[in-house]
Amino acid sequence: MPDGTVCLRGRRANRAREALALAAGGEIRVGRVDGPVGTARALDGTPGELRLEVTLGQEPPGRPGVDLLLAMPRPKALKRILSTSASLGVDRLFLLRAARVEKSYFDPKVLDARFSRKHLIDGLEQAQDTRVPEVFIRERFKPFVENELDELIAPTSHRVLAHPSGAAPRLEAAGEERRVVVAVGPERGWVPFEIELLASRGFCAASFGARSLRVEVFVPFVLGWLQAFR
Amino acid sequence: MPDGTVCLRGRRANRAREALALAAGGEIRVGRVDGPVGTARALDGTPGELRLEVTLGQEPPGRPGVDLLLAMPRPKALKRILSTSASLGVDRLFLLRAARVEKSYFDPKVLDARFSRKHLIDGLEQAQDTRVPEVFIRERFKPFVENELDELIAPTSHRVLAHPSGAAPRLEAAGEERRVVVAVGPERGWVPFEIELLASRGFCAASFGARSLRVEVFVPFVLGWLQAFR
Repeated sequence: MPDGTVCLRGRRANRAREALALAAGGEIRVGRVDGPVGTARALDGTPGELRLEVTLGQEPPGRPGVDLLLAMPRPKALKRILSTSASLGVDRLFLLRAARVEKSYFDPKVLDARFSRKHLIDGLEQAQDTRVPEVFIRERFKPFVENELDELIAPTSHRVLAHPSGAAPRLEAAGEERRVVVAVGPERGWVPFEIELLASRGFCAASFGARSLRVEVFVPFVLGWLQAFR
Repeated sequence: MPDGTVCLRGRRANRAREALALAAGGEIRVGRVDGPVGTARALDGTPGELRLEVTLGQEPPGRPGVDLLLAMPRPKALKRILSTSASLGVDRLFLLRAARVEKSYFDPKVLDARFSRKHLIDGLEQAQDTRVPEVFIRERFKPFVENELDELIAPTSHRVLAHPSGAAPRLEAAGEERRVVVAVGPERGWVPFEIELLASRGFCAASFGARSLRVEVFVPFVLGWLQAFR
């Protein structure tokens, strides 16, 4: 919709009402999915409906230029990772089967695009961003890495494999403009074959510290680390 | 207990059994609260009991030298923040009332030391650390900052107030050995009085990016940022 008025119903009307009740000056921040951000002000409404005057036109916040290649986490962790990644401005999430990933994590509920979208939108709302990260789910590790990875990830990207045995990441050298893709293994780690295959595709092992962190904690931790160099 | 055998019962016996079932070589990592870490191997057991042979003596992982001063988050977020902070090796957590913190967040359940401890231990187990972070809960902001803060936080500490209006944090200058304390406001921000009072105690506003993050996401994000300079 162009600038003008918009009519919300149901859950969205209620959420907007809650936000407006807390907002100073009766204005809330809004955005259009994959588009600009701006403000909205309540015009009128009925119990089930709310009409807003919307002014868009500002750019959403900048993005760090990071993709994540993750061994598929358990569904509960995945929810958080989707929301967290969207709030941090991750561009793409590659969710892969690995030897130490349980098959049950590829639940049909999780594979449904509406599942990802719900949690991604939640993260975008938090960060006042609008650009929905792309999610690629692949149940076969080897064909993905061998046949798809190089087409999806630009050859100029800095490819990092988070691994306790690696050296400290040297990202100063990567420069501000170079994209980064970080591979993060399952809770119990990658198996040697997976590490070798990723290494053969240019992933350099880098250690982000001696602490073993949950993947939903490691994702913002590593994004903060990368951001410190930008 | 010195090196030797230890007998676990109930929940702890079950958790150890689960971990042993997954462990390569029948050994799991163990640690003594506020003490060393090492390994344990199952000797024998009955359904409700498990006897382990324990070898301690290694140092737990290094710590980043960070304290957090947080506006008290809602209880659900607090659970995660306690666990996350412990896994990241935060030394101390100061949890304060602020103007935009709801009084209900200081629930008697949350104030009970067993509540904190449960979630801190969970985070320590994840990171194979043993040192329990100290938690200070204060329901009055002004007396804490005016009368207690300087006694608890060494004057040489780098005091940072995370705030979107701040400059990029200049922590290179802080050097490796200097401790850092990061103040993080409530969801809807500090009020000007609180910012001024913290500024009068040497807290410098620093921006960690334009994105508005949930505090449970911001904590690992900022720890990663700080770690990049260490």
